[in-house]
Amino acid sequence: MATTTVDTNTSSAATPLLDTISSPADMRRLPVESLPQLCAEIRSVLIEECSSNPGHFASSMGAVELTVALHYVFDTPYDRLVWDVGHQAYGHKLLTGRRKSFHTNRTLGGLSGFPNPAESPYDTFTAGHASNSISAALGMAVAARLNPEPGKPRRNTVAVIGDASISGGLAFEGLNNAANTPNNLLIVLNDNDMSIDRNVGSLNSYLAHLTTSPGYNRMRYRLYKGLRKARLVSDRSRGAIMRFNNSLKSLLVREQNIFEGLNIRYFGPFDGHDVTTIVRVLTDIRDMDGPRLLHLRTVKGKGYAPAETDPAKWHAPGKFDPSTGRRVCDEPVASFSALPKLKYQEVFGRTLLDLAERDQRIVGITAAMSTGTSMNIMQEKMPGRVFDVGIAEGHAVTFAGGLAKDGMRPFLAIYSSFLQRGYDHIIHDVAIQGLPVTFCIDRAGLVGEDGMTHHGALDLAYLRSIPGMTVAAPADAATLRNLMFTAANTYSGPFAIRYPRGNSDVTAADSPMKPLTIGRGRKMAEGKDVAVLSIGTVAADVALAIDILRDKGISVLHYDMVFLKPLDDDILADVAARGIPVVTVEDGTVNGGLGGAIAEWMTAHGHTSPVYRLGIPDAFVTQGTPAQLKHICGFDAEGIAHGISRAHSHADPQP
Amino acid sequence: MATTTVDTNTSSAATPLLDTISSPADMRRLPVESLPQLCAEIRSVLIEECSSNPGHFASSMGAVELTVALHYVFDTPYDRLVWDVGHQAYGHKLLTGRRKSFHTNRTLGGLSGFPNPAESPYDTFTAGHASNSISAALGMAVAARLNPEPGKPRRNTVAVIGDASISGGLAFEGLNNAANTPNNLLIVLNDNDMSIDRNVGSLNSYLAHLTTSPGYNRMRYRLYKGLRKARLVSDRSRGAIMRFNNSLKSLLVREQNIFEGLNIRYFGPFDGHDVTTIVRVLTDIRDMDGPRLLHLRTVKGKGYAPAETDPAKWHAPGKFDPSTGRRVCDEPVASFSALPKLKYQEVFGRTLLDLAERDQRIVGITAAMSTGTSMNIMQEKMPGRVFDVGIAEGHAVTFAGGLAKDGMRPFLAIYSSFLQRGYDHIIHDVAIQGLPVTFCIDRAGLVGEDGMTHHGALDLAYLRSIPGMTVAAPADAATLRNLMFTAANTYSGPFAIRYPRGNSDVTAADSPMKPLTIGRGRKMAEGKDVAVLSIGTVAADVALAIDILRDKGISVLHYDMVFLKPLDDDILADVAARGIPVVTVEDGTVNGGLGGAIAEWMTAHGHTSPVYRLGIPDAFVTQGTPAQLKHICGFDAEGIAHGISRAHSHADPQP
Repeated sequence: MATTTVDTNTSSAATPLLDTISSPADMRRLPVESLPQLCAEIRSVLIEECSSNPGHFASSMGAVELTVALHYVFDTPYDRLVWDVGHQAYGHKLLTGRRKSFHTNRTLGGLSGFPNPAESPYDTFTAGHASNSISAALGMAVAARLNPEPGKPRRNTVAVIGDASISGGLAFEGLNNAANTPNNLLIVLNDNDMSIDRNVGSLNSYLAHLTTSPGYNRMRYRLYKGLRKARLVSDRSRGAIMRFNNSLKSLLVREQNIFEGLNIRYFGPFDGHDVTTIVRVLTDIRDMDGPRLLHLRTVKGKGYAPAETDPAKWHAPGKFDPSTGRRVCDEPVASFSALPKLKYQEVFGRTLLDLAERDQRIVGITAAMSTGTSMNIMQEKMPGRVFDVGIAEGHAVTFAGGLAKDGMRPFLAIYSSFLQRGYDHIIHDVAIQGLPVTFCIDRAGLVGEDGMTHHGALDLAYLRSIPGMTVAAPADAATLRNLMFTAANTYSGPFAIRYPRGNSDVTAADSPMKPLTIGRGRKMAEGKDVAVLSIGTVAADVALAIDILRDKGISVLHYDMVFLKPLDDDILADVAARGIPVVTVEDGTVNGGLGGAIAEWMTAHGHTSPVYRLGIPDAFVTQGTPAQLKHICGFDAEGIAHGISRAHSHADPQP
Repeated sequence: MATTTVDTNTSSAATPLLDTISSPADMRRLPVESLPQLCAEIRSVLIEECSSNPGHFASSMGAVELTVALHYVFDTPYDRLVWDVGHQAYGHKLLTGRRKSFHTNRTLGGLSGFPNPAESPYDTFTAGHASNSISAALGMAVAARLNPEPGKPRRNTVAVIGDASISGGLAFEGLNNAANTPNNLLIVLNDNDMSIDRNVGSLNSYLAHLTTSPGYNRMRYRLYKGLRKARLVSDRSRGAIMRFNNSLKSLLVREQNIFEGLNIRYFGPFDGHDVTTIVRVLTDIRDMDGPRLLHLRTVKGKGYAPAETDPAKWHAPGKFDPSTGRRVCDEPVASFSALPKLKYQEVFGRTLLDLAERDQRIVGITAAMSTGTSMNIMQEKMPGRVFDVGIAEGHAVTFAGGLAKDGMRPFLAIYSSFLQRGYDHIIHDVAIQGLPVTFCIDRAGLVGEDGMTHHGALDLAYLRSIPGMTVAAPADAATLRNLMFTAANTYSGPFAIRYPRGNSDVTAADSPMKPLTIGRGRKMAEGKDVAVLSIGTVAADVALAIDILRDKGISVLHYDMVFLKPLDDDILADVAARGIPVVTVEDGTVNGGLGGAIAEWMTAHGHTSPVYRLGIPDAFVTQGTPAQLKHICGFDAEGIAHGISRAHSHADPQP
């Protein structure tokens, strides 16, 4: 497909059409011929806004035409539009009354980077975790049928899902159920053959193959339209015709259609950047009964040449110069003496490669997060020993269980909030058998701009109650390396290591590794007034808080627990014996995590020390910078100092 | 298919062949012609054993031939055989050295009712939760390739999965990944068109349709075999031939093959009760490269006429008279005056129907557990308002979220341990939006004979840490009804109500319903020495314990919390003010559940009362009767009395 770019030299592009649109109803008054111009204007705004306020750029660029067409043809928000994941929904935000506030995207108090029902009636359902759109939209479609609004036309429901998301098990469950439940769900498959990372799995090669026969599909679609117009075929009798068509098709192009095999009518593939065609097709199929799927081929990053060339890099490019396509993150470091700190992700990736080079049993597994987790470091060197299973966290865990059962040492790298999809699999397919699977849980704690669907707030709490799990969180890069070394070499059982997104404390991941004793913490500071027990990288904030308090005459004992499970009894006995107030600090929920474990231990052993818990409160936390959010949650250095100070006077430091 | 029954008049059937088999190696020495007799002997034993020691009968009856054939053709346990769910694996247990101990099936200290790696090397992976076999077996197949045993032949790996399980999202994720990872996985699809409840979903109607063309498939299989034998086609060049075949097939029988669409070679369907044919086909396809699927049609309950006639009833029939087919549970109640107690399931089912009759917004959802949960009571009266989505717990939750978002009031009934599959979906698709979905969590706590994969031990802990959840557990049938009434009428938000399997305290579900105050518990007994806080039906055991202790001069205060979240601050303040030891009792893990919540509250409020937690310990609990297991875990009446007594002397009552 030819690459077309908008004029990126116009740094503040004129948007005469978009300026007149405060809701999709305004757009519906435009003639269809003006939609290509509207699409170009939306692209200009996306380039301008995302270059200065970073976000998920390339997905939204690829979805401009389908977004415009959907709002043009459907009566949103009365008709329901459900976006899967939501990376692609920036254009949707621009068209639904959020053009003026779009510069606040992903910032504290601003727009969410994902569709968010609390933000707009056009955002019909929570998005962020992949593959939920078909199930949620099916629920809405069934609700519309069971509970129609009196005097209103039939409500339409549309799910928009990408080719990577549709390979998730949840999407398959939704498809399977959609086909045998009366509904009028339309599924739009936005197929760019390239999600966050390159798609994997046979469904994806299947989709690619489908697109090689557009001629045949077009013929079939026209035939069907003609028959329907001439009333030669009703929706009811259509089945037989379609089956005939499919036989013909198989003969002609030697392929099969999975969706039609599941009784989902298939239309496509069409060019997802031809907005007038999409409008025409959507209009044709809008009022049909029964579940149906429209397959659109799109180009991720469409309309911005650098993003089209390397869409993975431009998934979330950070700030960039719109005219040159130069990303700020690619700029050379200003000073040679100031080497940049490695991210925890890089420490993980390099350490895994180190370990894998020494032990043939080690394999890497990720679920479409190869770049994000830095699993790609091992993947590049050892492609045969790294498995990117696609968006399929549950399978990733169970697959790891099978590998471990037969002698391998799988290391999984999965984001904390996405691993929630593999919760049962950790219990049933790993923990019951005590298999040596190491869970490297990335994006733990408050992740920042991605907001409430992406915070890794619950992992400590939900992992702790699973029998047989070892659960740890490093306070620094060296400990991350040592924990991974321990999991690979001296321990045999399920081992969870969670760490945040972002910079570590080192510039090179080459410290010598050593085994750690399971369940052994370490003393970070001696003190006499209050005991602080922390886990993970918040230890650095605790250290700063201790400095603040020293000036105020409060002396603080600080232990880094390293392990949430098993707990270090010696540390707890020491703390309990001192009879001083205890403050726990963790970058996780205060319900059932480290603070809960310490409270249980103290009360069960008859100790009377109060235990005050600092961490993520019992609420879904909004987006913002990590520093802002830590401050709001009360566990940045200042908040921790305040909490310790309150504990010192035996008052509950929780708000 | 004609019904054939074994001679059920022989109450202790002679099993001359089976008696000579202490491992599959013994069986492999038999001529293939004797396998039908062996199958008949296995059926006799299954009928005899299951009639006196209840278990999952009908599934295993239907899988006899495929079990024999798999162990005959493959070199188990070197070759890996992974059973999905494991209901069908009794024949496997009889052939793998467990004939003599089979009478201990599902009893304390006896055989597990499911494949269990801790029990036998032939049980390669944990089974119990559906749809994991393909992922686990794929892991083993990849491990065999990466880490072959020196000097040994290539290891084969086989997953056996039913038609209900294969519609789960995890199975699809496994299939999708299997097709693009080098491996030699064989998937045996045991298709009886009837799992626990009747199958739903388009994949199932698709599978039924596939079987209408056995003639064509047979022809294709023979053609392929012939070509391969004549070396006219290699495994490598086979793709093109298969595509030609598929086009031909589509033309001939107007159908498509989903598995081949996913690049999984398909063979079938074959008669799953023709053991010699299965042996021949398995031998043919055993050494092929690449993932492949063998589709066998079987009859659930095969070989026992009553079970063939009503396989759902005979899934787990309880005790029965083998000669008459009369189930003990169908016998009339002995005394007219003693009406049987309703199960909690029946109380739920009748109450849901009551509520749904008054409120059009109420819909019921279950995931292939319609009979088990008693959702069928509403389903029979209101088939259009009950959705059995098949084995797809994640979809069930997200689908409910969509329904709730557009004004409905969904009630989900799902077993506790299976709801673990919907953990992320509860968070992301319900709780974030605060949607009014009511989770009726069945089989909570220790379930008894189904054992470690089925205990609902973790729900209280994992639900409590999810922001915005209301979590409750009734102590009796009236409270279950009132909680459901409250969820339907006076509360709007995610609401979890968990209750155990088994008899309630009532004989009729007709008590008038009333709304409860969210987060309000109730005083069950006044006392002064020790405070007991319980949740759920263990309140009855606490009452018995209090009777025991009264005789010993210990006076016990007892509150039924009803709600885990939010906690009743008034009760906790009362208890704290008394300064007496606290004992918590719950039919759930002691890590992070009620006990954890109370410990957190007490220590955070600066109270010094010790909190001793009784409940399910931090371990995977074996099978046995519920009474036996409660005793082992220390929270039957005796255990609770002991715990209170220890607390009274300020000693930790935990082992």
